[in-house]
Amino acid sequence: VIELLPVPGLPELAAGDDLAGMIRERVALRPGDVVVVAQKAVSKVEGRVVELETVAASDAAVRLASAGDDPRVLEVVLRESAVVVRHRPGLVISRTRHGFVCANAGVDRSNSGGVDRVVLLPVDPDRSARNLNDALGDGVAVIVSDSFGRPFRQGITGVALGCSGLEPLVSWVGHRDDQGRALRTTVEHVADALAAAAGLVQGASGGVPVVVIRGYRFQPGTRGAASTVMSAERDLFAGGGMSP
Amino acid sequence: VIELLPVPGLPELAAGDDLAGMIRERVALRPGDVVVVAQKAVSKVEGRVVELETVAASDAAVRLASAGDDPRVLEVVLRESAVVVRHRPGLVISRTRHGFVCANAGVDRSNSGGVDRVVLLPVDPDRSARNLNDALGDGVAVIVSDSFGRPFRQGITGVALGCSGLEPLVSWVGHRDDQGRALRTTVEHVADALAAAAGLVQGASGGVPVVVIRGYRFQPGTRGAASTVMSAERDLFAGGGMSP
Repeated sequence: VIELLPVPGLPELAAGDDLAGMIRERVALRPGDVVVVAQKAVSKVEGRVVELETVAASDAAVRLASAGDDPRVLEVVLRESAVVVRHRPGLVISRTRHGFVCANAGVDRSNSGGVDRVVLLPVDPDRSARNLNDALGDGVAVIVSDSFGRPFRQGITGVALGCSGLEPLVSWVGHRDDQGRALRTTVEHVADALAAAAGLVQGASGGVPVVVIRGYRFQPGTRGAASTVMSAERDLFAGGGMSP
Repeated sequence: VIELLPVPGLPELAAGDDLAGMIRERVALRPGDVVVVAQKAVSKVEGRVVELETVAASDAAVRLASAGDDPRVLEVVLRESAVVVRHRPGLVISRTRHGFVCANAGVDRSNSGGVDRVVLLPVDPDRSARNLNDALGDGVAVIVSDSFGRPFRQGITGVALGCSGLEPLVSWVGHRDDQGRALRTTVEHVADALAAAAGLVQGASGGVPVVVIRGYRFQPGTRGAASTVMSAERDLFAGGGMSP
């Protein structure tokens, strides 16, 4: 049995807060637990926020902004984008410098802690996960999660931006099926699946940023989630896009 | 707390088997439970299998087959495809008649119950889910799950091919964030998240085809998962592809 346990009562977070300490105060972690922390909580304690009053929109940002958009937000989106992959009124899909393809380069104004403030993705979500993991102790794994849209299907689901302590991908290559045939190509993104599961507790409203997953037997590992981004050369859908 | 409970001891399934009855014998379902059933189990009891000895590969299938591929499998893949979206040696990505974009149009030879047998996706996974739901009783929801790859990220994760009894999408549009700003565009695909969570128990080896998710408060609903496929007009990544 796998359990998804909310970590209750976390306060609004600010730069420099000891998030790991706050988690340890609220839950008795056990070896084998996976601690899934919403990206926004990580970014806030890491100070990855921008006050829009400090931002001047470039011409490119003004051109991208649709009616109702704040061009200063688009300016931050462009700064966080390596490539604008697609755009249409009200929606910019970027490849970030991390290699993530997501709406608005992960820049988010909702629940940012201030009306004219946006939250950015962590600079290095795998490092963020490792830092939390170091502070949370041995035998525990950490995932920094976010929710992304995807081509072909409506709606967002959880993904792992960063991870520490577990192998994000589990390969069945070389295993055999019930008929003895080798399984050729099956690689599961278990870190994304754990992030999606945690998302059932977190909710898009962000009320529960930290979830403990207990009872899932992960493979210990040291590779981060960055290693699971599909390289553009291997990606059959990577065509198109423009530099910001 | 949300729990993911495996349903143990299901036998190898065949056309006509009473899958709902087998589930009821093995687990005491409660109102509010979500029963996630792997697509392959559903397809087997619905007889959606093809013996390759009955298949003659067309020229198109032979052209698509790479070294080591069985052209008869490619023939079945083409028959199940509305559009071949992308292909490269060893990999065909199709849009199925359901609208799903996935490898090999969902045709799978592994754990098919026979060495020269392939399993197809259900004809109507929402109907499959409804039929199971009718047999499993009121207050329960059912998801027919599979694992798909995605652009931009390595590895497969669980998705909902069909569902019954719950709203697959939960919209936060119109809700307000902590600063009172309206959340504009957030729609969560909770059916996919539930399928991904169940995948942590099912595993790609298919040993545990049925998982009960207990403690998730779903929104009752009557729309199926087919309604959550992104229409080609709305999909910024829909370009390209060829008819089979």
